[in-house]
Parts: sequence; C-alpha cells; structure tokens
Amino acid sequence: MNPDVVMHECSVNDVSTAWEIDPIVEALRSVRTQSLNSRNRFDNPTVLPSKKRIEAIIESFSAAMFPHRLSHRQLQRDCVDFFVGQQLDSACTNLAEQIRVELEYSEESSMHSGKLAEESNLRTKAILQQLPTIRKLLDSDIQATYLLDPAARSQDEVLACYPGILALIHYRIAHAIYLANLPLIARMITEIAHSKTGIDIHPGAHIDRSFFIDHGTGVVIGETTIIGQNVRIHHGVTLGGSSNYTTASAAFGEKQWKVPRHPIVHDNVTIFADATILGRVRIGEGSIIGSNVCVTDDVPAFSRVMQAQSTLNSFIEGAGI
Amino acid sequence: MNPDVVMHECSVNDVSTAWEIDPIVEALRSVRTQSLNSRNRFDNPTVLPSKKRIEAIIESFSAAMFPHRLSHRQLQRDCVDFFVGQQLDSACTNLAEQIRVELEYSEESSMHSGKLAEESNLRTKAILQQLPTIRKLLDSDIQATYLLDPAARSQDEVLACYPGILALIHYRIAHAIYLANLPLIARMITEIAHSKTGIDIHPGAHIDRSFFIDHGTGVVIGETTIIGQNVRIHHGVTLGGSSNYTTASAAFGEKQWKVPRHPIVHDNVTIFADATILGRVRIGEGSIIGSNVCVTDDVPAFSRVMQAQSTLNSFIEGAGI
Amino acid sequence: MNPDVVMHECSVNDVSTAWEIDPIVEALRSVRTQSLNSRNRFDNPTVLPSKKRIEAIIESFSAAMFPHRLSHRQLQRDCVDFFVGQQLDSACTNLAEQIRVELEYSEESSMHSGKLAEESNLRTKAILQQLPTIRKLLDSDIQATYLLDPAARSQDEVLACYPGILALIHYRIAHAIYLANLPLIARMITEIAHSKTGIDIHPGAHIDRSFFIDHGTGVVIGETTIIGQNVRIHHGVTLGGSSNYTTASAAFGEKQWKVPRHPIVHDNVTIFADATILGRVRIGEGSIIGSNVCVTDDVPAFSRVMQAQSTLNSFIEGAGI
Amino acid sequence: MNPDVVMHECSVNDVSTAWEIDPIVEALRSVRTQSLNSRNRFDNPTVLPSKKRIEAIIESFSAAMFPHRLSHRQLQRDCVDFFVGQQLDSACTNLAEQIRVELEYSEESSMHSGKLAEESNLRTKAILQQLPTIRKLLDSDIQATYLLDPAARSQDEVLACYPGILALIHYRIAHAIYLANLPLIARMITEIAHSKTGIDIHPGAHIDRSFFIDHGTGVVIGETTIIGQNVRIHHGVTLGGSSNYTTASAAFGEKQWKVPRHPIVHDNVTIFADATILGRVRIGEGSIIGSNVCVTDDVPAFSRVMQAQSTLNSFIEGAGI
Amino acid sequence: MNPDVVMHECSVNDVSTAWEIDPIVEALRSVRTQSLNSRNRFDNPTVLPSKKRIEAIIESFSAAMFPHRLSHRQLQRDCVDFFVGQQLDSACTNLAEQIRVELEYSEESSMHSGKLAEESNLRTKAILQQLPTIRKLLDSDIQATYLLDPAARSQDEVLACYPGILALIHYRIAHAIYLANLPLIARMITEIAHSKTGIDIHPGAHIDRSFFIDHGTGVVIGETTIIGQNVRIHHGVTLGGSSNYTTASAAFGEKQWKVPRHPIVHDNVTIFADATILGRVRIGEGSIIGSNVCVTDDVPAFSRVMQAQSTLNSFIEGAGI
Amino acid sequence: MNPDVVMHECSVNDVSTAWEIDPIVEALRSVRTQSLNSRNRFDNPTVLPSKKRIEAIIESFSAAMFPHRLSHRQLQRDCVDFFVGQQLDSACTNLAEQIRVELEYSEESSMHSGKLAEESNLRTKAILQQLPTIRKLLDSDIQATYLLDPAARSQDEVLACYPGILALIHYRIAHAIYLANLPLIARMITEIAHSKTGIDIHPGAHIDRSFFIDHGTGVVIGETTIIGQNVRIHHGVTLGGSSNYTTASAAFGEKQWKVPRHPIVHDNVTIFADATILGRVRIGEGSIIGSNVCVTDDVPAFSRVMQAQSTLNSFIEGAGI
Repeated sequence: MNPDVVMHECSVNDVSTAWEIDPIVEALRSVRTQSLNSRNRFDNPTVLPSKKRIEAIIESFSAAMFPHRLSHRQLQRDCVDFFVGQQLDSACTNLAEQIRVELEYSEESSMHSGKLAEESNLRTKAILQQLPTIRKLLDSDIQATYLLDPAARSQDEVLACYPGILALIHYRIAHAIYLANLPLIARMITEIAHSKTGIDIHPGAHIDRSFFIDHGTGVVIGETTIIGQNVRIHHGVTLGGSSNYTTASAAFGEKQWKVPRHPIVHDNVTIFADATILGRVRIGEGSIIGSNVCVTDDVPAFSRVMQAQSTLNSFIEGAGI
Repeated sequence: MNPDVVMHECSVNDVSTAWEIDPIVEALRSVRTQSLNSRNRFDNPTVLPSKKRIEAIIESFSAAMFPHRLSHRQLQRDCVDFFVGQQLDSACTNLAEQIRVELEYSEESSMHSGKLAEESNLRTKAILQQLPTIRKLLDSDIQATYLLDPAARSQDEVLACYPGILALIHYRIAHAIYLANLPLIARMITEIAHSKTGIDIHPGAHIDRSFFIDHGTGVVIGETTIIGQNVRIHHGVTLGGSSNYTTASAAFGEKQWKVPRHPIVHDNVTIFADATILGRVRIGEGSIIGSNVCVTDDVPAFSRVMQAQSTLNSFIEGAGI
Repeated sequence: MNPDVVMHECSVNDVSTAWEIDPIVEALRSVRTQSLNSRNRFDNPTVLPSKKRIEAIIESFSAAMFPHRLSHRQLQRDCVDFFVGQQLDSACTNLAEQIRVELEYSEESSMHSGKLAEESNLRTKAILQQLPTIRKLLDSDIQATYLLDPAARSQDEVLACYPGILALIHYRIAHAIYLANLPLIARMITEIAHSKTGIDIHPGAHIDRSFFIDHGTGVVIGETTIIGQNVRIHHGVTLGGSSNYTTASAAFGEKQWKVPRHPIVHDNVTIFADATILGRVRIGEGSIIGSNVCVTDDVPAFSRVMQAQSTLNSFIEGAGI
Repeated sequence: MNPDVVMHECSVNDVSTAWEIDPIVEALRSVRTQSLNSRNRFDNPTVLPSKKRIEAIIESFSAAMFPHRLSHRQLQRDCVDFFVGQQLDSACTNLAEQIRVELEYSEESSMHSGKLAEESNLRTKAILQQLPTIRKLLDSDIQATYLLDPAARSQDEVLACYPGILALIHYRIAHAIYLANLPLIARMITEIAHSKTGIDIHPGAHIDRSFFIDHGTGVVIGETTIIGQNVRIHHGVTLGGSSNYTTASAAFGEKQWKVPRHPIVHDNVTIFADATILGRVRIGEGSIIGSNVCVTDDVPAFSRVMQAQSTLNSFIEGAGI
Repeated sequence: MNPDVVMHECSVNDVSTAWEIDPIVEALRSVRTQSLNSRNRFDNPTVLPSKKRIEAIIESFSAAMFPHRLSHRQLQRDCVDFFVGQQLDSACTNLAEQIRVELEYSEESSMHSGKLAEESNLRTKAILQQLPTIRKLLDSDIQATYLLDPAARSQDEVLACYPGILALIHYRIAHAIYLANLPLIARMITEIAHSKTGIDIHPGAHIDRSFFIDHGTGVVIGETTIIGQNVRIHHGVTLGGSSNYTTASAAFGEKQWKVPRHPIVHDNVTIFADATILGRVRIGEGSIIGSNVCVTDDVPAFSRVMQAQSTLNSFIEGAGI
Repeated sequence: MNPDVVMHECSVNDVSTAWEIDPIVEALRSVRTQSLNSRNRFDNPTVLPSKKRIEAIIESFSAAMFPHRLSHRQLQRDCVDFFVGQQLDSACTNLAEQIRVELEYSEESSMHSGKLAEESNLRTKAILQQLPTIRKLLDSDIQATYLLDPAARSQDEVLACYPGILALIHYRIAHAIYLANLPLIARMITEIAHSKTGIDIHPGAHIDRSFFIDHGTGVVIGETTIIGQNVRIHHGVTLGGSSNYTTASAAFGEKQWKVPRHPIVHDNVTIFADATILGRVRIGEGSIIGSNVCVTDDVPAFSRVMQAQSTLNSFIEGAGI
C-alpha cells in the first residue's frame, strides 16, 4: 500500500477521525502467523463445516421426521411424502457437502477429490438410513416425557415446547453422524442444541430409548456415558468425566477421546436436579439420586442417594443477614 | 411414482450419487402412521400455534408497554400513543388468530367456525385488559432488581440487559394467557424465554410483585408454585415438584396438572444459587436458603438454611488429584 | 381523535371485533408517565445503545481476530489483510456511534455534540488498540481448553464449537470496553454471550490467561472477581458476591459498584461443576473445589474441598419412591 | 387522546422537533372517509389478494414446471418428483387462500364461509390441471425464441435469461386463472411480469403456441387480443384497443370488459419494433409490420407495411442543430 | 502492508490461485483520486441520501395515505388512526435524516450542525402538510383511470395493480419534495418508480388532477413539462426537451435546470402510444395526438395529429422478407 | 409410493380438499422427459450460473470501483483500500465459481476438474485486470451524461440516479466477461440491468467512451453493434439486427452469433427517442436521427433524418373521437 497516495486522499483537518487501522492489521497478522506456526500450520487453513448449513440440515431432517409438527407449514395429506422426500434430498445434498469439508479438514484430506466425493456420499447414505430408527427412539422419548411430566398436556405439546426433546432430536442425529466417524459435524450439532436449551450432550454418548430430560438447563452428558432405558434426569444433572487422569494425561499431551471415563446409568434410574455424577461409575438399576449430591462411586441397584442434612437456624429478626 | 420413467431420466454411470430416498420416505411414513394410530389420531393432525408468530406478539406487547426502551426505534414524543396503539392492534390481530388455532386444537374444536372466532376475540380482549397491570408489576420487578443488585447502574440498564426481566416479561404475559385457559400458547411463550435466558418459569406459577432473579441461568419454577412479594432468587434455584407421587400417578396414566405440588415462598425470602426446593413446602417469611442446599420440608419464617459443612484437606503437592 | 368520524367509519354489526384499544393506550400512557415521574425523568428519554448493532460489532471484531475460522467465508491468502482492515473499519464506525449513544445517555450527556464525537472516537481507538492483546489471550484460552479437555480433537474444534471460548471472546472485548468506562455497552456484550452460552461473566471481572470453562452452562463470574492463570472451572460454577452487606447497603439505596465483593481465584485452581464460591474469599494456588460445594471462607493453597458425604440407602424394591 | 397528559410528557424546550402529526392524521381520515363514501363503501374494506404471496405462487409453479432450471437448487435425479410435488402442494395451498380472498372481495362475497372454501379449492384444482399444457406451450415458445434469435446460444439460455419467456410464464399461468374467472389475481400476476420485463400482456388475451417476443420492453397486448401460432413481435409493439368508443362508453360509465376491441394477429406474422396496431383489426397470415408504423386497418395476408419515407438532409457542419 | 510476512503466510505450490489484487487496488485508487481531483473534490466525499431508506419512506407515506390498500395488513377499524400516525412518525424521522444528508451534500453544507437539524425538521413538516392534498390528487387519478380504462374492474384494482398509479404516487410525493428544494431526494424517488414501472416523470414537472397513464412503459415527462386536468397518455409517450439549445448550452458548460424546455399539455388532451412531443410546444385543449408521431410545433385546440400514411405492399409468398 | 398407506392416512370426509397432485407430477415428468429427449439431453442437466450470485458479484465490483458512492456505507478515508481489496477478493472468489459452472455447462465440460478450476481462475484474473479501464470508461460516460443533460445537477447525482449509468456499469463489466468467452454469464448480467432499467444492451456490442443514454427505457443495442465516442441516444432507440437473413438462416437451423448484423454508429451521433435503426448500416459522424423514424440504409456523415410530416386536422368539437 503506497502511503503517499493515501495521504493525498486524506485532508488535513480531520486526522483525528482516522482509526489508524494499519498497525492493528499488522499486529493481528503477526499474532495469527505465530499461532499458525506454533501448530505447524503454515499453509492455507482449510475451511471448517458451516454451522449455518448444519442448522439447515437438522431442520430438514426434523421436518422430514415430524412433517406435521416441525415443518411449520400446512401439508395436504396426499402430499406429505412429497414434502418428506424433498426435505431429505435437500438435507442429503447439503450434508454430503459438509461431510466433504470435514473429510478434507481431517487427516483423510490426502484423498483425491473424486474419492472424497464418493466417500461423502457413502456416509451421507449411511446416516440417512438411520432416520426411521431415530424417529422411533424420539417417539419413545416423547412418550416417556408425556407420561412422567404431570404438567404435560399432550405429546404434541411435548414435541413442540420441551427443550429436552429438542436436545434429543439434535443428539440422536448427531450420534449417527458421530458413529459415521465425523466427530466435528456431530459436535457442532449438539452445540447448536446446547446453545438453545442449555443441555450439553456429547454426540459420543450412548442413550437408550425412553429418555426424559426435565427442564434441562445445565445438563451435561459426557462422551463415553452409557444410559439405559427409561432413565429420567432433571436440569443441572452432570454425568461428567473422572477428573484425575485427565490432568495427568494432558501433561503428556495425549488425547484419550474414547477412553471410558463417564458414568454408566442403568435402566429406570431417576436423577434429580443439580446432582453431579463423575467418572466411570455405575448407577444401578432403579436407583434414585437426589438433588445437589455429588456421586463419585458406584451406586448399587435400587438405592437412594440424598444430600447430607442441611443446617437450619432461626435467626433474630432484623439482624444483618 | 412410475419407476420406469424415473429410470429413464437417470443416466447409468453415476448411480452412486442417488440417495435412494424412496425407501426412507416409506419407512418414515410407516413410523408416522403407527405413531398416529397409537394415539387414536388417524385424521389429519391439526396445526399447532406458531412459535414465530408468538414471538412477534410478545415483541409487540413488550414494545407497547415499554415504547422508549423496547421499541428499538426513536419515537417523537407526540407520537408515542400512535406507536403503542398500532403495536396493540397488530399484536391482538395475531394473538386472536393463534388463540383460534389453540381452540381448534384443544377439545373445544367442536365449536363451529363463527363461534371460534368470537371466542378468540373475547379472550384476546381479556388478555389485552391485563397489560397495564402487567406493566406495573414489571415496574416493581425492575425496581427491585435495581435496588438489590449492587452491579446495576440504572433501571434502564436493568430493563435492557437483565435476563431476569426478559423472563418476567414473558412469564407475566404468559400467565395472563394461562389464566385465559390457553395453556399451550402460554407454555410456548415461557419456553421462548427459557431458551434465551435459561430461566424456566411455568406460566401457571403465581408470582407477586417485586420479584428479583439474579443471573438466572438454571432457574426452574414449577406450575403450582406461589411466590410472595419482594422475593429474591439466584441462578440455579429450583422450585420443583414433589417427586414421589408424580411417578405413582404416572403409573396410572392420570394427569394432575393443577394439583398443588410445588413450593410456597412467602414474602421477603432470599434463595441463593443452586438451592433446590422440592414439593409443596412452605418457605416462611424472610427466610434465607443458602447455596446448593436441597430443601424438602417446610422452613419456618426468619430461618436460614445452609449446606452441611464441606470437608477441606490440604494435599501433598504433586500427588494425583 | 374525533370519535364521531371514527364511529362513522365503523359499521354497526361487528362491534364485537373491535379491540377497544383506546383505553388501554391511555392506561399504558398513565403508567408510563408515573414511572418516568418517579425517576425524575420527565423529559424525552434518551435512546440506549442497540443490542443488534453491538452484536454486529462483536462479529466484526471476532472475524478480524480469527479471519480464517470466524469469518464464515473463504479468503484468498493474499487478501486476508484487506478483509481484516475492512472489518475493523466497519466495527470502529459502528462502535464509535454506540459509544456516542452511551455517553449521551450517561451523566456526560452535558458535553456538546462535537466534543461527544471526539470523545467517542478516542475511546474507540483505545479499544481498537487492545485487539492484538485480546487475540493473544484468546489463543492461550483455546490452547488451555484443548490441552485439558480429553474430548477436544483440535484447537480449531475448540474455537468453532466451545461455548466457553465464545463467552471469553465476548468477555475479553467487553472488558476492554468496561475499562474505557463504558459499562452499559460492556454489559450488553456479555449478556449476548450469556444468552447464547449460559455463561454469565461480568465485564468488570479480571481474568488472566489460559482460562478454561468446561461446558459452561450456569457459570456466573461477578464484577470484582479476580482470576489467575491456568484456572479451570466447570459448568454451574458461581464466583458470586457476598450477600450480607448487599442487602444492607441496598436498604440505604447506596450502590457499591466496584467495591470488592467477589472471590479471588489464584493460579492453577480447578473448580468442579456447580460449586458456589461467595464473597471476597481467596482460593489459594493449585486448590481444587469439588462439585456442588458452597465455599464462603478462604481456602489455603493446594487444598481440596469436597461436599459432605451423601447418605445412601438401599430401599425395598417396589416401594413408592 | 388526552392532550393534557401528552403535554405533560413533552418537555418545553424542543417543541420544534414535534411533527404535529395529529391534524394530518385527521385530515387523511377525512379524505379517506369521503373517498369511501363516494363509492358507497362505508363498511370495513375487504382485504385484497397479496402481491407477495402471488409472487411466491408463481415461483413455485415455475419451479414445478422447470425443476432443473428454475428451482435454483441442485436436485438429485431420483428426487425431482418429490420436489415437484412439494412445490405444487405449497403453491395450491397458497393459491386457494388468495382465491378465497378474491371471491370474498368480488360480488360473490355473499357466499357463506364453507362454500367459499369449497369454491376456492375447486378453482385451484382446475388451474392446477392446466400446468402440463402450460409447460408444453412454454416449450414451444422457448423453441421458437431459440430458432428465431440469432444471438441465442441454447434453449437453456433462453429460459434463464430472456424476459420474453419470463413474461410468457406469468401470462400463461395468469390466463388459466383469468379463465377460472379470477381477473384480479390474474392481473396482479401479469403486472408482476410487467414490472420485471416491461412487457404488459393482459391475462385475457389469447396467445397460441410458439410465440416469440424479442427484447420485449414496451410491448403491450390488450385484453381481447387474439394471436395465432408462430407469431414474432419485437419490443415496443402495441396491440392496443380501438380508442374511439372507449371514450364514448366511458362517458356513459359503462364498462365493456370483454367487448372485442384489440387486434387479431394471424399465424406466422412478424411485427417489428415500436409498431402500433390499434382496434379490432386483422393482420393477415404471414404479414410483416415494419418498425414504428401505426396500423388501424386490416392488413391482408402476406403483406408488408412500412413507415412512410423519412426525410434526410445533410446539413452544414457547425450550424446549430 | 509488509509483503515479507504476507509471503510467509502463502505456501509455494498454489500461487496460481492468488488474484493479485494489490495492483488492481492501487490502480483503482489512482483512477479514483484523478476523478476526485478533476472535480476539485480532494476532501472526503460526503455521503448521498440512501435509496433504501427513501424507498421505506415512500412505503410509509403510501401506507399512511391508503391504509387499507397499501399497508399490506389487516387493520382493526378503530385502530386505523394509530397505524396512520405511527407510519407518519416513522416516515418523518427517516425523511428528516435524509434531508439533512442532502443539505450537507448541497452548497448549504456550510450550515452548522444544529441549524441543519432545524432546517431538516422544518422542511419535513412542510412536506408532511402536503399529504392530504396529495391523497386527493391521487384519488382523482385513480378515478380517471378507472373511468377511462375499459379493462379496469374497480378503483381498488387500479390502485393495487396499475403501474401508472404507482408512478403517480411516487411523482406526487417527489414533487412536494422538489418544491421544498430537495432535488436529489426527489429525483431518487422518481427513479425508484421508473425502475419499477418504466415510467420516467421528472419531479419538477407540473401535473394537474385526473391524470391517466395507460400501461406506461417508456413514458418520459421532462422537468419543465406542464400538464392540465383530465389528460390521458399511453405508454411510450415522450414529453421531452427541445434538443437544439441543449447541445449548444452544454458546449458552454452552463446548466439550465429550470429553463422551460418541455411541452405544455392543456386540459382533456389524449396522446396515444409512442408519440413524441419535443420542446416547449403547446398541445391545445382537447386535442388528440396519434401513435408514433413526432410533434415539434404547437398544436391548436381540438386538433388531431396522425402519422403519415404507411406503405402497404403485398409480397409474393416465399420470397425473402 | 404405496397408495394403500396414503389412503389410510386420509380420512374419508374431506376428500374434496386433496389437490390430486400425483397425476400432475406424472404429467409434468412426462413433458419434461420429452423435452429433454428432443434435445438429446437424457443425462442429468448441468446447473446454470446463478443469477443471485451474479448480482452479488456486480454489486461488489461496482462498490470496488466507486467505493464512496456505491458501497452504501461510510468508509474511513484510510480504510478505503481495505474495503476495495475485500470486495475484489469476494467478487473474484464468487466469479471463479460461476465461471466454472459455465465452463462445465458449455462444450468445454469435458475438461477434468483440476483443469476447470485452473481455467476459471485464469479467466477471473483476466477480467479483474480490466476493472481500472472500465472505471475510466464509466467516468467518461458519467461526465458526458452530466454535460449533456440540462437536468443533471452533479456527477454524483448522475452516478446515483441515472438508469443509463446503471446499465453501462453492467454492460461494461459484462463485455469484459463476454470477451473472456463466457457469453452466458455476460448475458445474465446485462439482463439484470435490462430488468432494472428497461435498457437492453447485448454484452457483445462495442461501445466507446463518453456514451450517454437519456432516460433509457426501451433502448435495444444488438450483439454486433459498434458505437463510437460521444454518442448520445434517447429512450426507445433500437440498434437492431437486419431481419431478412435471420429468418432465412433460422430455417436452416444455423446460428450466426457473431455475424455482423447490427448498425455501426460513428462518433458524435445523436439519436432521438424511439428511432429504430436496423441492419449493418452506418450512421455517419455527427449525424442526427430524429424521433420515431425507422432507418434501414446508411446515413452519410453530418446528416439529419426526420420523420415524414404528420397530418394535422382540426375536428369538429363533439364528434366521436
């Protein structure tokens, strides 16, 4: 950039309004280059999958699975299949493109371009195959929610309003994508739900049928968690990682993505609000975990875990609290 | 669909790019039909109220109540009433339509179409009547928030920034709609706020004036909760349902929507972060509930409830944590 | 408004569809005027900064700092600087305008218009200067997150998906704006992140490098909090205000904005999910605070604080829970 | 509106910025009422069909007829029919609603509401039936354009770029709607094309196959025009009404909508730019009408009509022109 | 820009994909600077009024004048005035801002900023005052169109569909703005209509009541044109400037903006399609100008001007045309 | 599609609301297949360039050439180059993609994918190189318009308002693209301008500097037209093709794209409104062509061509017109 000409274009009297952006641009470039160097990424960074496109894909898959409730449009009854097919086509075309982006980004980027396209299409079709099963699982989640929440008035209300169901729609699709070995897209999907609902389910978790999340805000379910049938959890429940070796392994810079480190929750367990369960512990069948407790050891079947007794003092009226 | 013609349109060499959507469309239809059958809903499902329209209605009501702060536009002082009137007209027209949709959906759908329109208009007007009262209640909430939060610099900042106020605007409108016997629209409104703020207030709850929600994420207030004046709660506070009979009654498939099952919080109570209060218990006037405690019994007036003492160990540096 | 003419325009037979908005407009005006009077604000209320514009500013600053990852577009390598410079120009122009709005709103509104513009530009430039430093801090946060989270597969994934990083981008920019004495815009920025992530960091807090927020929903970090290097906190962690004198001072109507009332967390501390730390207490270097505990006293360096033991009862199968 | 309260809200010192809108609102109401009265329309005016919705309907029908070229999306070959069906469903639902609006508006508004819905659906289906025929006619228009325009490189270019084809797509759909006795929607459709292309074809005109409009700007084709096969017209060509009796009948206030008053153009006629043909005259088969002529009498088959010879003067250089 | 660092960021092997934008940016800057210099505009060019904002202003004024037909929404009858007032307020606020921009741009830019604001508000109010009169004139235009066009079915259809009316709405507002000495905004308004309708009316023209433009494409009405009552013109009609002295005066670089140089058309004149009338000639009362003629001399009252007779030859079938 | 299941989903009593879309989908598929067969295009049709993307490219190039006037934003003076560079980068990336689409579509589609990308980039760069020259030509057009139009008040007004300039911006960019052998994108660009301005300039035409189009609606300039310097044309002017051999050649199905068949207009010619010049005729230097004439023979330099004298009759008042 030739500063002489730029100077010429500036008039003298309002220098004060210039932002002096040039040095900031240079400083930002310098930090950026350092950061790329420190990660051995000198070359042109590859593009990441697009969150916006992924949102559109999830909307299409949702509408295809629940055309009457999640399509936000009035469909003639003899036209539902047209709508479903069109949504699937659109979602698959977009998904295949995003998959290609993730494959290019990941270590498989050494594939040549034709191979990439073929691989993207294959994985897209594999994911598409899962949709009917996902719909059935979601039906069981909706029914469980409806049966267990005394405030629920209909299954339609549950599907239309409950953040737990929104989170499970995202998770169950993301899980299929995670199993197709596309962890980045899968994670982006569950983070979309996390932002909308406050429910953070890692796409790697295994969750069986008839899962009910009440209220949901603050729920965390880690990558290697396993959850059985008919489990019910309230808001603020954490099924988190064991914390010790995490720090240790991090010291050695080793990643342990799929090492089992989150709880196993057996069938028919209920976990109340803000309970925290950490590490690869087992919560036995039919147990109840009370609110606000922190569990770090196995709990036998048909147990009840409650917080230690609080202290209650009456205090003299008027005293500073 | 005649497969011959479709075949003809396909060329031979890129069969691999076809998604094979037909069988998925068929499988999804099959699951869908099963699901409808299992709920005795063979006929064309009715449309639900539209979340997008409801969001617009709330925006209009908010702008009509706080034209200077929530209209996002500069209004001439002699034109404020034009703006307010226009927002109300627009909101009422849209609300009446959404009410008609809920009435059609609910058991009252047997009404004939003229009757439906009349009933929708009547309820719309009844809700409209509440707006000045709602504005006054919100003024008291804003003032309480401003007085109690040492970080608040002005009432305008409170109105513009605080998620607690955003949640209360939604709740107080939704509560009026709930009282007009429109539980689905009411719930959709509070879930909109839930998604934006992490604060989940059921529209059925009764909340008196000067309510202050600090930070708010993770707050849950159940359907039959009753909250007095000048109550203050922090983020993560749960005023939840009694859990035992819920499961029991669910076993019998009976819904107990309005059965009292959530706490009664008397005037001047303060509840700190992440405290959980469950069941129809009474928190007596002026009491303080400390952080992270779980309360399942009545608390007398002017009490303080605190968590059991934590354990504190120093540990040898360098040992695994 | 001349009711005669209006009457004329109405036909007789559908009076029922009229909303009768006039009295509501009047009632709302009456409440509005009362509210303004009670705050001694008879005159035309000033406009507040626009949340929508502020969102755009943050997006531009983010894209300028991370052009490859947060610009959502494919940039030619020899054109990155053009993009960065253009984003900075656009962000600065918008920021200067919003700053002028805040200055007009605050007590400094007595400035004449030319002075206001000059002051706005000066503060804009001061904030702009901080961007390279902010980028470096964010790089340290991303790296810390990547190293400590066993589920993280790459720093790019961390930047693109993790709500903790999104919250820190907002906080670190907002903090620079807070230090430029623009608390309202600063707060609006952190509330934008709060809504998206459930993480509520007050722009006044001081947070050193390499900060890792895991999951994040429900995190609250108060205005006068001080956090050292390499600190890690999980979702639901509260670094909150001391509650006693808050109420007291509020009774006297005195605001104590910057009075130190939140914790000091030293280097290398780890705080697990849902722990609550209240008041100006010190958490000594290298300590660990367990899940769900509530801390209101100083914790020495290299300590571990854990919740009191829960009670565990097996219960007889089949009994009502 | 109570001026006292409004006055109170106004501060004294900036009266000058008030627009004084009240009297203008009153004056506009007065004119409006007068206008309604003069047309005997005292009652609440009915809504008109929505231009925006109608545009969406045309887009859907266009995309259904030309899914590869006008859908603006990449369709999997085995999914084209899903797309087509979905577009038709969506278009029909919207069209039925707009038809109901026109029926309510027109004299048929005395129908009761159920009858209106039934009638709207019937006409929608009748129009839908015409689509395959319309597609065939448009194919003939595209082919004629491609063959006759030496600049056209492919039929796809013709479909994608040529304003004449855009106008004919709108006209041919509008004509079917006109024949279903819905003149208002039909006219709105052709005016949408008129605005985009400068080609004004009345939906009542009859135009046979293989019609080629070159360039098109300024073309006018009146309501009772009849055009044979393989006709070609250039931009600026007018096939207009006979002007005499129009004025006369207007004097008597009688409308003569469908009285034949525009030209009949036989097969294989070519009309060059800016020619004007007025009244119910016949242009015989195979004739050529030259540029800029005005024809008001019948032209026998196989004739050529040319403008009278222009005058050409050389003039002395430098003289005023 | 430091090329070394940029070079570093580039990898070696895909130089070919770089656009080499730097030299183009430099060349464009050079041309830009030359152009500014040649017009003695070294300093920062002022901003022009925004076309997008002006479109919004016209939409608001249109909706305020015709709330039932051009508001595109369903208004409760007792709420029409709220809507009208709100539209006027919004339009005036935006218009005052655009006027300030034009005043700054024009020679009056030497005004100080407070004076500019005051002047903008004054002119805005002056324009606002004209709206009821403009509505009345438009009513007369609509009625004339309805009476004279045998194809028109109702005045509502005329208002909703006819490009002539759309052009007159724009022109009549623009003319008021032109008379307030704001020629740039005025011109931008008529060019918006020109783009949508093909009708180009200069905002300086004087057009009396009951003006009917049929079809409209290609109509041109110059700056100093004067048109009486009940005039009717068809598409392609030009009321253009005298061409001789234009060229001459241009040679001397003198502008003659308001020098009378366009036709005067008396009451009750009809001008048919594509007729061209050039220079300050008078078309006497009640005259008729036929299609495609070019008039450059005065025409007495009650005359009829027709094109010279065309030549008509039959030609031998099959011969080259 | 299995009709049995569909039947099941339908209830009996409202068969009348079904659109019966299946047979229409089938009929449309049949017509579509026939059409594809008739053009030997059995295989999957390739995608065409996207009009929407092309519009964005033209907007970016326009803003890069005229950053102060056509960027619609306020640019800091030391940031103009950032803006220009960023627009060029964005436009080039998009243009290269559209070029690849056209290359795939055209006969060059046999290129392998890497070659296609390389070729697209090369042509993009070649077009980019032309921008400074195009800016200079447009400067000359703006200046000519300003000098010759007595109504023009400034060059900025000309650039911001005049449809002739808008058409020339599109044409001059399109011409560079046409010369890069990309006729489809080039044509799409000029048709975008055609729709907005009514000015139809084929991208193949050659137009020298200082070209002034007044008003413009209805102007047509054919593919092989050659226009010298300082030429001025009014609205409705046609520089069209010779019509005879067109038809003849079409009969043989031979395309003659670049065969010279449009006029050559020498320097300093003026052509008035609605004149039509057809065939490869020469209009000699400095000549004037009057309104509404049709020229099909060469015109010597410094000539004036005027329409044959019209007939003027006074007529007896009251007689039918």
